Amino acid sequence: MRIGTDHYRSIWMDQDPGVVRVIDQRKLPYQFEIARLTTWEETAHAISEMVVRGAPLIGVTAAFGLYLAAFKSDRNRWCNQVRKAGEALVSTRPTAVNLQYAVEMGMTELDCSASRERMIERLFHLALQLAEQEVMRCRRIGEYGLPLITELYTKKNQPVNILTHCNAGWLACVDYGTATAPIYMAHDAGIPVHVWVDETRPRNQGARLTAWELAQHGVPHTVVVDNAGGQLMQERKVDLVLVGSDRTTRTGDVANKIGTYLKALAAKDNGIPFYVALPSSSIDFNIRRGEDIPIEYRSNTEVSHVWGWDEQHHKELGVRIVPELSGVLNPGFDITPARLVTALITEKGITPASEEGISAMFQT
Amino acid sequence: MRIGTDHYRSIWMDQDPGVVRVIDQRKLPYQFEIARLTTWEETAHAISEMVVRGAPLIGVTAAFGLYLAAFKSDRNRWCNQVRKAGEALVSTRPTAVNLQYAVEMGMTELDCSASRERMIERLFHLALQLAEQEVMRCRRIGEYGLPLITELYTKKNQPVNILTHCNAGWLACVDYGTATAPIYMAHDAGIPVHVWVDETRPRNQGARLTAWELAQHGVPHTVVVDNAGGQLMQERKVDLVLVGSDRTTRTGDVANKIGTYLKALAAKDNGIPFYVALPSSSIDFNIRRGEDIPIEYRSNTEVSHVWGWDEQHHKELGVRIVPELSGVLNPGFDITPARLVTALITEKGITPASEEGISAMFQT
Repeated sequence: MRIGTDHYRSIWMDQDPGVVRVIDQRKLPYQFEIARLTTWEETAHAISEMVVRGAPLIGVTAAFGLYLAAFKSDRNRWCNQVRKAGEALVSTRPTAVNLQYAVEMGMTELDCSASRERMIERLFHLALQLAEQEVMRCRRIGEYGLPLITELYTKKNQPVNILTHCNAGWLACVDYGTATAPIYMAHDAGIPVHVWVDETRPRNQGARLTAWELAQHGVPHTVVVDNAGGQLMQERKVDLVLVGSDRTTRTGDVANKIGTYLKALAAKDNGIPFYVALPSSSIDFNIRRGEDIPIEYRSNTEVSHVWGWDEQHHKELGVRIVPELSGVLNPGFDITPARLVTALITEKGITPASEEGISAMFQT
Repeated sequence: MRIGTDHYRSIWMDQDPGVVRVIDQRKLPYQFEIARLTTWEETAHAISEMVVRGAPLIGVTAAFGLYLAAFKSDRNRWCNQVRKAGEALVSTRPTAVNLQYAVEMGMTELDCSASRERMIERLFHLALQLAEQEVMRCRRIGEYGLPLITELYTKKNQPVNILTHCNAGWLACVDYGTATAPIYMAHDAGIPVHVWVDETRPRNQGARLTAWELAQHGVPHTVVVDNAGGQLMQERKVDLVLVGSDRTTRTGDVANKIGTYLKALAAKDNGIPFYVALPSSSIDFNIRRGEDIPIEYRSNTEVSHVWGWDEQHHKELGVRIVPELSGVLNPGFDITPARLVTALITEKGITPASEEGISAMFQT
């Protein structure tokens, strides 16, 4: 995707085969920094500290982590070391299922009777392959989602207003994004779109990442507080809600960034279509009910403090917004039940958020 | 109400009859400062800049503003000056109807054929009377709301979890608060309560004011981001939602701080009672439909920046959280339709949020 005039992905291999490169997403939008990951431990840290985030990207990052574990392993203990890395990587974040899938694939690939060199090569190719697959899936999601926007534009002949929550953009994936893929394609096809960007407390990935992405690509957008979406819908200022997913059950219940459920309720109440864009790598075919998806609880300081740019001293700074005497709680995700989802946009097409729809599409 | 061991109201007369005192709510919770208002212009500024806020309090503050206008007026032009002050005060903020009522009462009181001294006295008494009325109304709201909490406690025999949005506490009123009045009374009666406090972006009055109030009074509470309320309700961690109102129509549609509507939808979806606590001074008997309530749009910087406490330099600071290239929009209120409101708690009792309920209770 575009950053100014350059093209980037969110993760790539350095010329040095011992180095994986990622954009440090904690620094955006104030500073554009590339981080070097040279060990699986650094990879795990990048995931848990949210240097990288977004379900598809953390899956791919974990795959590169397994590769680095093999590449930096000891000659005699390499197989155990890769296995340990897998166990640690899978537990860095609980909600996104992509992470689990990627590590499982690596573990399936792992053959302790093969040579270390062979295994390094295999894990390297697995990581590259997963990255390419995610890119392909996002491109397909864009192609399947584009007609939804085109139709709305044909109907109203005015810019199509799309509300999105958190960042399901290319920064959350490897390229294109999930929720943003149809938006970028519509914009590139000359269809006028305008995006309402929820700021997405506590970490403000909407204000920080989605707004930045859209600005870099030249897509008109407006940032609003998370509280505003319902009012915008009541005033008919939203034509379509488009979000991503960290894990979707086989029945179509959607775990996504905390607050998604509230926007789904408002969309339903106002008769506005609510679509979830997701690659099949985010579907957990083993879980039926949304309530069974583990919800991550993150650090209290994400709630008690807000990080932003100190314009006077030109540096990032955290300010406290909750009195020290007050407790806080920080659930990271919520579950949008399938009944509130108009449909899922996947790399295989658009399907109802239901067990029948999902199993027909993915032949499970 | 209590601040440490002292008792305070949010507005009071100084010993000097030319000075009205208010708590500067922009500085809380980091600094406790008392502001002096000595002219109607300072009063208007205090309302528009949110030194004081909350529907009942801005009504009372405007009444004191009219008094100050008379008190500081010229001997010959006093009547015109008070009238001009009324016009300016009423337009400081558009959504709360209390402001309109208070200024209308002052204008009705205004008699240009009476003496200036007589008018100063009358407007002084009007302001004091409005303040006392709001205190009485909030106390009654507390008394009528208390049994709701008691009942929930009797049923579950565990702390009652109440979610509230923004600040409908004593800082928003003169004393007791609206939504908080039943909570303080329950706590004082030894009923264990725990309050979920929405931080309430963009100005964070929940995190800054409600959390501070509750902490000063010793009421257990936890601050969450605005996105979290739906998830808490899905997990049955909320027994009751209790919010205030800036203006309620004669049919029971409720204008309140942006984001209230989203919590009402989630309460409905999860079968959790959603009560609105409001003095009759917040009811607009002239408006039927919520859509006809004017919604205030406030400054963009409230969205693009977050103000908090810089713990390193011990001062308040605003940090930018939205990229400079991105637009923002800042609607201050939304409308919760009557159908989502379990009932209204008023100073005359609990009534359904309907034209029949409201007109029966207030004999209109």
